[in-house]
Amino acid sequence: MNAVNVGLLGLGTVGQGVVGILQRNANEISRRAGREISVTHAAVRDLGKSRPVELNAVTLTDNVSDVVNSDVDIVVELMGGTELAKDSVLEAISRGKHIVTANKALIAIHGNEIFQAALDNGVIVSFEPAVAGGIPIIKAIREGLTANRITRVAGIINGTGNFILTEMRDKGRSFEDALADAQALGYAEADPTFDVEGIDAAHKLTILSSIAFGIPLQFDAVHTEGISTIASQDVAYAEELGYRIKHLGVTTETPAGIEIRVHPTLIPERRLIANVNGVMNAVLVQSDAVGSTLYYGPGAGAEPTGSSVVADLVDVVRTFTTDPENRVPHLAFQPDLLSDKPVLTSDQFECAFYLRLLAEDRAGVMADVTRILADQKISIESLLQKEPIDDQNAVPVVILTHQVKEAAMNTAIEKIEKLDSILAPVARIRVESLD
Amino acid sequence: MNAVNVGLLGLGTVGQGVVGILQRNANEISRRAGREISVTHAAVRDLGKSRPVELNAVTLTDNVSDVVNSDVDIVVELMGGTELAKDSVLEAISRGKHIVTANKALIAIHGNEIFQAALDNGVIVSFEPAVAGGIPIIKAIREGLTANRITRVAGIINGTGNFILTEMRDKGRSFEDALADAQALGYAEADPTFDVEGIDAAHKLTILSSIAFGIPLQFDAVHTEGISTIASQDVAYAEELGYRIKHLGVTTETPAGIEIRVHPTLIPERRLIANVNGVMNAVLVQSDAVGSTLYYGPGAGAEPTGSSVVADLVDVVRTFTTDPENRVPHLAFQPDLLSDKPVLTSDQFECAFYLRLLAEDRAGVMADVTRILADQKISIESLLQKEPIDDQNAVPVVILTHQVKEAAMNTAIEKIEKLDSILAPVARIRVESLD
Repeated sequence: MNAVNVGLLGLGTVGQGVVGILQRNANEISRRAGREISVTHAAVRDLGKSRPVELNAVTLTDNVSDVVNSDVDIVVELMGGTELAKDSVLEAISRGKHIVTANKALIAIHGNEIFQAALDNGVIVSFEPAVAGGIPIIKAIREGLTANRITRVAGIINGTGNFILTEMRDKGRSFEDALADAQALGYAEADPTFDVEGIDAAHKLTILSSIAFGIPLQFDAVHTEGISTIASQDVAYAEELGYRIKHLGVTTETPAGIEIRVHPTLIPERRLIANVNGVMNAVLVQSDAVGSTLYYGPGAGAEPTGSSVVADLVDVVRTFTTDPENRVPHLAFQPDLLSDKPVLTSDQFECAFYLRLLAEDRAGVMADVTRILADQKISIESLLQKEPIDDQNAVPVVILTHQVKEAAMNTAIEKIEKLDSILAPVARIRVESLD
Repeated sequence: MNAVNVGLLGLGTVGQGVVGILQRNANEISRRAGREISVTHAAVRDLGKSRPVELNAVTLTDNVSDVVNSDVDIVVELMGGTELAKDSVLEAISRGKHIVTANKALIAIHGNEIFQAALDNGVIVSFEPAVAGGIPIIKAIREGLTANRITRVAGIINGTGNFILTEMRDKGRSFEDALADAQALGYAEADPTFDVEGIDAAHKLTILSSIAFGIPLQFDAVHTEGISTIASQDVAYAEELGYRIKHLGVTTETPAGIEIRVHPTLIPERRLIANVNGVMNAVLVQSDAVGSTLYYGPGAGAEPTGSSVVADLVDVVRTFTTDPENRVPHLAFQPDLLSDKPVLTSDQFECAFYLRLLAEDRAGVMADVTRILADQKISIESLLQKEPIDDQNAVPVVILTHQVKEAAMNTAIEKIEKLDSILAPVARIRVESLD
């Protein structure tokens, strides 16, 4: 069979990973794919820069259009950003090129438009590398679980955040210290906002939610909270209660609509996903036929992400002769059969909570607090009064609640914080039993 | 698009699971697949038997040929056994039917012949349900990891065995008691040989090894040991040393050849796979580009296995219009490019070991033992002398070795057992650090 020619837009870490894998494993890959796959063109910002990969057979250009208008069969978008990337991808699609992209923001924000353009032009846009790096989670959900009505997807889908939370637990470090370590090790950017505030995870969860439930991509509807507010004492108290704190992306189908939320979460330590540590990622999928399945692996890095890029290249190659209507739909469901089920806002969520209060150490305080919770129909699973802090007349109180409407919790916390005996804002973290 | 008609050979637990899923999730599945998939024919042993699924639209027969010669597009083989199943599948292939099978023994033993027949007839034989039930592990390895040179696959791929070992650890029970529990709960057959002696796992590992390394299926070359010899004290000592005992299928590519082995294994408890408990399955894949990925879920049951059957049905449907040479090859690699790398025999394996000796409680015994090990160039990682047993003049000694040629270990154990001071046969269990 003919060799397949690939053009890269961007030749940074992942691009070099892709070139390296295609060269090193050329024999392995062609024994599987039945033909050779080679990078023949690449667009780069700086033509003069030296790169630690063999590029003799690659035509370099600093003009994206040169690649898009070349004779390549597939364009791999690795530029990052959303605007130039979108224009480039749409231009490539209009030239009849298939696309592979690692760009989660691009798909989360402009995916609906891009997929429509792909449909109109009879090409495929493949995006396995955009979610959870090297884990074939898009394939598992879109193809491996086709038999299932999926009820929930919950994932540790940001390695930086998981590294920080793992350090906080293992070494008792503060968020700030753990972040500094992550930066020193190259796991976190100088500006860590995208990772620690959950935006990166929200991009990925947007995609997972759409392919799980067959809804259009709706990044703006994702409820996102970061981990920068997590105190080391919360990590320790969670541990005492048999939980681990993870930065989780959770999307659930409820009778009222779809929840899509990214936030720190207490997970029972006996769950496998609670034991996913360091920069590793894992995605748990709950569905009616198979039950719970979990997919674990490296969520970032040149070669893990490159692994997914190459897998997508082979997948695209295999569908060259497939009638387009027999291809796997971009969002798992046929584009004309997507669901219009609404995405819920945070006050509509139902969740269990971990609350930490700092209360005056005197009789009657807990009666006031539990009365407020009872008035909002919030039932308490456990309440622990910790040792008073040093010489202050103040005790930390930790409460685990049962499942509750988030609007009720908001009201309760507002009232609790108004009590004279409550000395600091209430810390609250959601709890997911994942059973 | 046209509806797809499916014929079942066998309508037992899994068959009923498939019918139930296709009915209950008909809308969900057709929204994904782009067309309806229905069971129209089924061959059963007993036509008169009542079955707890709706079968009004299904033509029942007690003759396999009626299904094979009907107008179904795909035949799902759920008969079990290897001889009649093989004949039926070959007959269906010769009639141009695509095949989905959950029959691990059939594929492990007759797969090479069946795949050749499929190739000659331009049809697909799909077997995701044959390995690890509902986990899409065949898809992950054959398609998700195409970029990678795979170095090792290690799996907990028999739920019965994992249930027994989990009970032994959690409740301190003996193998016999835990097996009786498994039987009472319906997890183990009245004759548990296939599960506890590792034959079922060996069938599955045969398949995993072939798709990982691109070698023909070689069930007869698998080295298989069961878990019936595991003593509760080994489970407890392993725990003290920071390990869990799991019944692992491991296949590794070494410079000398391929190891394919099923045996009880000590795994460091910090590994995720060491924390896979009860009847759950998990498969760890180690490869050069992505690194370690792990796939976890239910390994058996009507609906989990049915989930994989239906996923395969949809996959087959999607390739109806694909040029056969663009399909995913049965064994992941193009059939004319399989490797002839030899499968190693057990004396060629290299492994670390846990040894448990019962030694006379007197000076000099350990000197004799460690001298024998040193003579075989076996280096010791740790050696623990436990408390003497009751009033006997005997102490259990536990030794962990570094990696060693298995032939050397055999020689050493033979010599150790000949020492007057060694009072019982040496218990040995392999150790895999899985790093």
